[in-house]
Amino acid sequence: MMNLSIIGSGNVGKHFVRLVENSENLNIIQWLSRSESSYQKIKTTSDFKNIKKADVYLFCVSDKSIHEASIKLNLTNQLIVHTSGINQFNVLCNNNRRGVFYPLQTFSKQNKTQELEIPMCIETEYKKDMKLLIDLCKCLNLKYYEINHEKRKILHLAAVFSNNFSNHLYSIAHKITKKNNIDFDILKPLIQETANKILLLEPTKAQTGPARRNDTDTINDHLKLLKNDDYKNLYKTFTQLIRDENKL
Amino acid sequence: MMNLSIIGSGNVGKHFVRLVENSENLNIIQWLSRSESSYQKIKTTSDFKNIKKADVYLFCVSDKSIHEASIKLNLTNQLIVHTSGINQFNVLCNNNRRGVFYPLQTFSKQNKTQELEIPMCIETEYKKDMKLLIDLCKCLNLKYYEINHEKRKILHLAAVFSNNFSNHLYSIAHKITKKNNIDFDILKPLIQETANKILLLEPTKAQTGPARRNDTDTINDHLKLLKNDDYKNLYKTFTQLIRDENKL
Repeated sequence: MMNLSIIGSGNVGKHFVRLVENSENLNIIQWLSRSESSYQKIKTTSDFKNIKKADVYLFCVSDKSIHEASIKLNLTNQLIVHTSGINQFNVLCNNNRRGVFYPLQTFSKQNKTQELEIPMCIETEYKKDMKLLIDLCKCLNLKYYEINHEKRKILHLAAVFSNNFSNHLYSIAHKITKKNNIDFDILKPLIQETANKILLLEPTKAQTGPARRNDTDTINDHLKLLKNDDYKNLYKTFTQLIRDENKL
Repeated sequence: MMNLSIIGSGNVGKHFVRLVENSENLNIIQWLSRSESSYQKIKTTSDFKNIKKADVYLFCVSDKSIHEASIKLNLTNQLIVHTSGINQFNVLCNNNRRGVFYPLQTFSKQNKTQELEIPMCIETEYKKDMKLLIDLCKCLNLKYYEINHEKRKILHLAAVFSNNFSNHLYSIAHKITKKNNIDFDILKPLIQETANKILLLEPTKAQTGPARRNDTDTINDHLKLLKNDDYKNLYKTFTQLIRDENKL
C-alpha cells in the first residue's frame, strides 16, 4: 500500500483524490488545503503543522503557490512532486527529493474523473525515485511518459495551440452563429468528429476545407461575410498556412 | 417506401448509400456515377441515358459539377437536391423542383457511417417539398434544421473556423512535438476532451490557459520557444483575442 499526501483542493486536487480513492493499493493519508472540501470519507485539513508521513507528497496548487506551499510543509528528504506543466522541479523546497507529476489534461468541475484519459508526464530529481512515480501511475491505471523540463515546456506550448486556441476558434464560431440566430448545436457533431479524426490520421492528412482545396471563390465569399477585422486577419493567416502546407 | 436516386460515388455519396441501405422505408432505385463503386448489392451505373423514376434525386458531386450533372440527367419537374454547403439551390437545372440536403459533417474513408452524427441542413424551392425532405431525414434517423442559403453560408464559415482551422492547430502542435522528438499521442486525450467540453459548456466559459489567466511569464516563455514567425504571430493574435474576451 502506497500512502499519498495531497496538497490542494482545486480541480486538479479533487480529480486526483477521486482517482486515488477509486484505485486499490493507494491510500490518501492526508488531504491538505486552506479551504474545506471532502470526497467520500476523506476531508481536507488546514492544519499544516501536523503533517503525516507519506510515500509521495503531491502538490496540486497553482503555479505561483508551489514554492511557498512546499516550504510550509517543512519536510526533509521526502519525495515531493508538483503537477505544473511549466515549472521546473526546483521551485519545490530543496530539503527534499523533488519531481514532477504533470497530468496533460484539462480538469473542470464538469468532467468526470473516471471517464478521463490522463497522460502523465513524470520527472524526478534522483533516478531512484522514478520507480515510485511509475508505480503510482500504474496503480492509478494511467499512461506515463518520462519527460524532462525542456520537453515538458514544448508540450505545454503545443497544448496551448491544439487546445486553448482551438477552444477560442469554437468561441468565434459560437459568436458568428449566435449573431446570425443560428443554433450552435448544429456544429457540435462536426467539432467532435474533427477531434476524433486525428486518432486515425495525421492532422495534416486530415485537413479539409476551402483553403486545402484552394477554392478561391469560397474563400472570397467568406472574407466578404466577415465584418470583424481580427477574424478576417485570422482567416487570411490560416488560409495561407494551410495553402503553404499543401505545397510541401 | 421512398425511392432515392443517388448521383456521385465520392465520400459523401458512399456514406449516403450506406445510410439509406441500412434504414427501413428507403430504397436506392439507382446509383449513378462515372466511376465504378459498389456497396452490398448496390452497384453504380454510368448509363446517364436511362434514368429511373425516383422520389428524390440526391446530387453528391463536387461543387463545380452540380450544374452540369443536373442537366445531364435531363429531368423535368422532379425533386432534385444537392449536398453543398456554399451553393444555392438554383445552381441545379431549373426544369425541376430544387432543394438542398446539406450534411454538416466531415466525411472520409476512415469514419464509420453508422457512428457519425450528421445534422442535416435542408431547404426547398417550393414549400410543399419540405415535407418530403423532412420525411427523408426521419427515415435516415438524422436531426434536421431548415436553413436558408444566407444562414447556410454563415454556418459554412463558422465550420471553417471551428473545424478546418482547429485541425490546422492540431497540425501545428504535431509539427512542434515532432521537431522536438515528443510523441504527439500524449496530446490526443486533451484534444478529445477540449472538443467534448463544449457539449457541457459554452466555449467562452470553457476557455483555459495562460492567455485566459493573463499569465505573462508563461506567455513570454512560449514566445521565446517559438522560432517560426507565422506561429509567433498566431500565438500573439490568439492571446490578444482571448484577453479581449476576458474584458467583456
